[in-house]
Amino acid sequence: MNRFSFNQITAKHWALPELVEGLTSAGVSQVALWREPVAEYGLERSAALVRDAGLTVTTLCRSGFFQAPDWFDDNRRAVDEAAALGTNVLVLVSGGLPEGSKDIAGARQHVADAIAQLVPYAAAAGVTLAIEPLHPMYAADRCVISTWDQAMAIAEQHPVGHVGVTVDTYHLWWDDTALDKIARAGERIAIYQLADWITPLPAGVLTGRGLPGDGCVDMRAFHTAVENAGYTGPIEVEIMNEELWQRPGPEILAAAIAGYRAI
Amino acid sequence: MNRFSFNQITAKHWALPELVEGLTSAGVSQVALWREPVAEYGLERSAALVRDAGLTVTTLCRSGFFQAPDWFDDNRRAVDEAAALGTNVLVLVSGGLPEGSKDIAGARQHVADAIAQLVPYAAAAGVTLAIEPLHPMYAADRCVISTWDQAMAIAEQHPVGHVGVTVDTYHLWWDDTALDKIARAGERIAIYQLADWITPLPAGVLTGRGLPGDGCVDMRAFHTAVENAGYTGPIEVEIMNEELWQRPGPEILAAAIAGYRAI
Repeated sequence: MNRFSFNQITAKHWALPELVEGLTSAGVSQVALWREPVAEYGLERSAALVRDAGLTVTTLCRSGFFQAPDWFDDNRRAVDEAAALGTNVLVLVSGGLPEGSKDIAGARQHVADAIAQLVPYAAAAGVTLAIEPLHPMYAADRCVISTWDQAMAIAEQHPVGHVGVTVDTYHLWWDDTALDKIARAGERIAIYQLADWITPLPAGVLTGRGLPGDGCVDMRAFHTAVENAGYTGPIEVEIMNEELWQRPGPEILAAAIAGYRAI
Repeated sequence: MNRFSFNQITAKHWALPELVEGLTSAGVSQVALWREPVAEYGLERSAALVRDAGLTVTTLCRSGFFQAPDWFDDNRRAVDEAAALGTNVLVLVSGGLPEGSKDIAGARQHVADAIAQLVPYAAAAGVTLAIEPLHPMYAADRCVISTWDQAMAIAEQHPVGHVGVTVDTYHLWWDDTALDKIARAGERIAIYQLADWITPLPAGVLTGRGLPGDGCVDMRAFHTAVENAGYTGPIEVEIMNEELWQRPGPEILAAAIAGYRAI
């Protein structure tokens, strides 16, 4: 359990003070935070809350969205927020195609260029940019970085520690080439996140993820690959699921822990 | 327009006799048929209907589903149906994971083995098996063959003409490695199908496809790749869209033709 981290989005409606109390009550020492609820509660207040509770913040989720006009300013703010919260990993969801565009290759190149522009600022703050390849079903409207290979190709243009990649089982499980490459990725793995694939997918395909073990992802195979890479960092349970969100926070946490333990 | 083929599923609720009449009225000479409506109208009746109208059947959609217990018998029946309808291309949707399974690699191997078992029967009937890689969002419940590479790896175990691959823009557009490989695929391209990617995706993610030009797929890039491969065969417009299906058949056909012409 010392590697378990509870990703805040898994209990989307659990207010931050109650979440922190729930985690400490359950003996959980690590949490991944999201920018929106942190901003709502206040950055400094949030930082103090988790610090006083002795919680380690494993990642800040999430920045990126490089097609937005203010992407550079917003991403620098996200780096500052990560540093203020005491985490050295900022997860990047790279954004979809610009409105009306059919140029996905161009959008991907823009992401690579934008990350290159952002690296000096993040590195100076001691924050690793963790590019997250999202499932190809999000390529149009959420993240043009769709595969492990695409994320690694960008990361490898930068020093280890400046840019890494997020391993999320939900996004990568279908790719027959990913596991072997993850096993060789070494320190490029910036964070490891668990969610399971369940069907049918809901409209919008965002909030239908399963708890680890509830779906068809071979979590043991991912575990082996990540271990073989030498990754010894936190393992986040990060589930977006409309039904799960309706349950009380402590129940969701218990379910996440049970799913984590079972695999 | 001599390469245009109207895929029957695009006007799902258009009865076969009216569809045939609508196509001939519109000067369309090619059609792709689906097994279920053909069975409903009767195989021999359907074959006579399209033959008498002078229509060419470009493909029969679709067989595969190799996880079903009766896959071998059912696929042989599909080969017979294709031959009876006068088409030499049978599209294969390979099926998802067996119930409760987390072994996607095993399911993919089973597909390769099953196709190898089916090839002699299909080849004897003069029918090419056209493996269709489906978008990775269908990997669990509909088709474990998710990429161009996976489909080609299976096809290349067999002679050209016995096993080919279906190029469907909807399923492949996100893959940055696919276009170059399609351009080198030569006679492995068994059929070329057009559908566009539009968002948001509906629940179940099956019936939210766009007419060519309505989404974010770079159709010109696909056209170039397929041309460079030397493919000169039919180009099917194959759209599954709940809203489109509500329109009268002739309107749907007109929209498909307009979309095809625009690109």
